Amino acid sequence: MVNLKFTDGLIPVIVQDAVNGEVLMMAYANDEAIRLTQETGLAHYFSRSRKKLWKKGEESGHFQKVVKILTDCDNDCLLYQVEQKGAACHTGYASCFYRTLAGEVVGTKMFDPDKVYKKTGN
Amino acid sequence: MVNLKFTDGLIPVIVQDAVNGEVLMMAYANDEAIRLTQETGLAHYFSRSRKKLWKKGEESGHFQKVVKILTDCDNDCLLYQVEQKGAACHTGYASCFYRTLAGEVVGTKMFDPDKVYKKTGN
Repeated sequence: MVNLKFTDGLIPVIVQDAVNGEVLMMAYANDEAIRLTQETGLAHYFSRSRKKLWKKGEESGHFQKVVKILTDCDNDCLLYQVEQKGAACHTGYASCFYRTLAGEVVGTKMFDPDKVYKKTGN
Repeated sequence: MVNLKFTDGLIPVIVQDAVNGEVLMMAYANDEAIRLTQETGLAHYFSRSRKKLWKKGEESGHFQKVVKILTDCDNDCLLYQVEQKGAACHTGYASCFYRTLAGEVVGTKMFDPDKVYKKTGN
């Protein structure tokens, strides 16, 4: 295994759809998230805002089956190539990159986030 | 224009080949780099190690013509979709992501870096 370079314990992860090549999202992983991703075959990350390990899809069911993990020339960025269940973005779009810099929406909406992330209170 | 979120003045930029969808590299931009990218149509970044603005290809000739700039749902990561001249990686590979985590080379070598980055001493 290559010797990865973490910054404050984290490494950025680019996530790409293994089927159609679409860039889906960017997140961060720590060594534990990478280990769990390799062990389970499902993408795990570390949430900087919630300061906790996070399995993609744990709330939404939109898991990412990791087909391949690549590292870059400097070993300070990873690329997860995944089979995405549902959609990657919590807003309901297939990809988090669904807008231009001008704010024009160019992505495809796949689900209604109010339904997917609805809290089950009973 | 959307209101981008910079961290210490920088925002990560994922770079994708607009023709074949390959993820080529990850770099950082400041607002000046983004402005120059939009004005010139060529990808500009900010080098964290050299602490300076950087036009991709200024040394190698391997410029990136930016076809589209997308922002993510949180406005804290950009995606440049580019037409890559030559190859993206300074090692000579088409993409910086040319190895698996195990260190196996899976990418395609496009040029000899010793020739492209040779210093002209005369």
